[in-house]
Amino acid sequence: VTDSFPITQVVLRPGVIDLGWGSPDPTLLPVGEIGAASSAILREAGPSALSYGAPRGPGPLVEWLSQRLAGTRPPRPEWLVLTAGASQALDLFCTLFVEAGEIVLVEAPSYHLARKILRDHRATIVPLASGPEGPSTEELRATVAALRNAGKRCRWLYCVPTFNNPGGWSWPQACREAIVAEAAALGLTLIEDDVYRELAYSEPVAPPLADLAPEGVVVRLGAFSKVAGPGLRLGWLQAPPGITSRIVESGLLDSGGGIAHFSAMVMAELCRTGGFDAHVARMRTGLRERRDALLAALAESLPAGCRWTAPQGGYFVWLELPGDTDGTQLLPLAEAHGVSYLPGATFYPEGGGERHLRLAFSMYGPDALREAGRRLGDALRVDGAA
Amino acid sequence: VTDSFPITQVVLRPGVIDLGWGSPDPTLLPVGEIGAASSAILREAGPSALSYGAPRGPGPLVEWLSQRLAGTRPPRPEWLVLTAGASQALDLFCTLFVEAGEIVLVEAPSYHLARKILRDHRATIVPLASGPEGPSTEELRATVAALRNAGKRCRWLYCVPTFNNPGGWSWPQACREAIVAEAAALGLTLIEDDVYRELAYSEPVAPPLADLAPEGVVVRLGAFSKVAGPGLRLGWLQAPPGITSRIVESGLLDSGGGIAHFSAMVMAELCRTGGFDAHVARMRTGLRERRDALLAALAESLPAGCRWTAPQGGYFVWLELPGDTDGTQLLPLAEAHGVSYLPGATFYPEGGGERHLRLAFSMYGPDALREAGRRLGDALRVDGAA
Repeated sequence: VTDSFPITQVVLRPGVIDLGWGSPDPTLLPVGEIGAASSAILREAGPSALSYGAPRGPGPLVEWLSQRLAGTRPPRPEWLVLTAGASQALDLFCTLFVEAGEIVLVEAPSYHLARKILRDHRATIVPLASGPEGPSTEELRATVAALRNAGKRCRWLYCVPTFNNPGGWSWPQACREAIVAEAAALGLTLIEDDVYRELAYSEPVAPPLADLAPEGVVVRLGAFSKVAGPGLRLGWLQAPPGITSRIVESGLLDSGGGIAHFSAMVMAELCRTGGFDAHVARMRTGLRERRDALLAALAESLPAGCRWTAPQGGYFVWLELPGDTDGTQLLPLAEAHGVSYLPGATFYPEGGGERHLRLAFSMYGPDALREAGRRLGDALRVDGAA
Repeated sequence: VTDSFPITQVVLRPGVIDLGWGSPDPTLLPVGEIGAASSAILREAGPSALSYGAPRGPGPLVEWLSQRLAGTRPPRPEWLVLTAGASQALDLFCTLFVEAGEIVLVEAPSYHLARKILRDHRATIVPLASGPEGPSTEELRATVAALRNAGKRCRWLYCVPTFNNPGGWSWPQACREAIVAEAAALGLTLIEDDVYRELAYSEPVAPPLADLAPEGVVVRLGAFSKVAGPGLRLGWLQAPPGITSRIVESGLLDSGGGIAHFSAMVMAELCRTGGFDAHVARMRTGLRERRDALLAALAESLPAGCRWTAPQGGYFVWLELPGDTDGTQLLPLAEAHGVSYLPGATFYPEGGGERHLRLAFSMYGPDALREAGRRLGDALRVDGAA
């Protein structure tokens, strides 16, 4: 393997603790369990684990998932499609439902690579201000009205309401209820990216928008891969049967069958045996320790004027820098001190977040995270003295 | 598992030998080998088999593939991207390169579900007559000229030159050379669907268009899944680095990493150990036996006036019915006799193929194929007598 053709996406730079990567710590991944599940499913299901899979995903996993997602309004299996990760769910949804040039509202800040997928489908991105309290209904209403008054079609809002990427926060219950009601009134569909829900450090977790909204107002995206191994590329989409049937009947799934069939069969086995639940518990504990280590290091090491979120789940801390410190400008100095991150501006389509950073605590152990906090503090003090 | 939520895509009807499915016989799939490779790669590569994969695909498999594809012009690894099957390669290519409303020429007949993928991307399909001799350069030139004279952009031709789906034939060498030269002259890109190449029953196989064309004239699609297990969802795209880098930098692959990472890691192990080569040899033998059984049964059982192709690789026989017998109209009678197929009209976007059938001999053993031939002969004789 040469450097130019690596095995994994993450490529580490010597001497740099890179909190830019939203990836799980490799030591937390269930290598042995996936190995055992692979062997077991090939032994038990035989060639059906390797044949063209059902386009919706293998029945046993679809049915398990429909139970797993049972909140106040359990989605029937007809509401679900398994996908090659939440990203591929969004990609296929765009192919089938979002027209070239059409507007998609996105929370600002929100996940930058979802924006990239939307742009690949020639969507026009329009930001909607958001933050720890979620978007305001007034601003949503005004933004949609302005676009529609200008003769533009406006049907979609992409958002990450729970353990937000990049913010780590979750919309409060009142915001959830208000936004789904406003979306229903406006005829807007919410694309709810809910991939971090399983990674909650404490209960209860706020309900998904999909459980609060009238039928058809929410298309929800989720993932197994965030929890049990990103390389499995296994996620799902929850939507009314009219939408899932269009997806199941797409050329892509009609031609190739289930888009992640082997991974889905392995996961079906892991879920059936309880191995998935046991792994989720370990993952939550591991990530909580990492969050605690990073938060403690930030409290000890950062200069006055810094503020940050204390996430109750997921992978990310959102840090506000003091004074007029710019996260993008600080980056070279931080890297010279051996720590990296994604500047806040990354998560805004049209400016904003200049004084913020996203710190992912998911990929390193507690010791490295403590060291990263110290290095970031050192860089900020040098920057402040300059 | 209920009937409505099956595990696999193929759902058999009692009493019907269904030659409509272009799927491999489950008994030919390398279940034990994939199990061993899964265990081995998780043991050896550990968490890197489950982490976000390199967007291009894992280096070792990309490099193995670049050797495997070494014909007269070996593609460097930069020319390759691993995908979730050839269908997903086509799907992602369309997202990034084919504009809504744009024209895509397709061979008629050609693979109907590729057309469905193209239509999902709002392409306008225009047929180009083809057959055992491939398309004619004169017709290609005239079709493109007519479209362009009408003010339409015409940049793409989708084709299956080798072990064609549905025809089973391969374009002759002279046709290959003429079509790539004409495409180069016209500024047309050939999307060469080459998924059946490994399934050759005898050597040599005609070279891929990609080896004959000037750089950039061909985008080639291939698959591991046709050979070693469709449920692995693992294929590839070969194109100039300017195209593959756009794909590697797409939102889908940037966000999720390699789109079939775990399957690719398992396949990398199977290829490294020689297990893939051994399996390909078994697959060729198994499919050749099936082809021979079907061809013998057709020769024994079909009434006079039927003609069919004798494929040298792949999954399909293309059958021409006698007189004015219509393949779509015959289907209910055939199914009443316990045999099914896809009518030839399925493979034509705008009429044609009414007197043809596609018979897939890939999914059944020799005995079932002999019985299928007898049943089809009985149905045709009843039809002819009616």
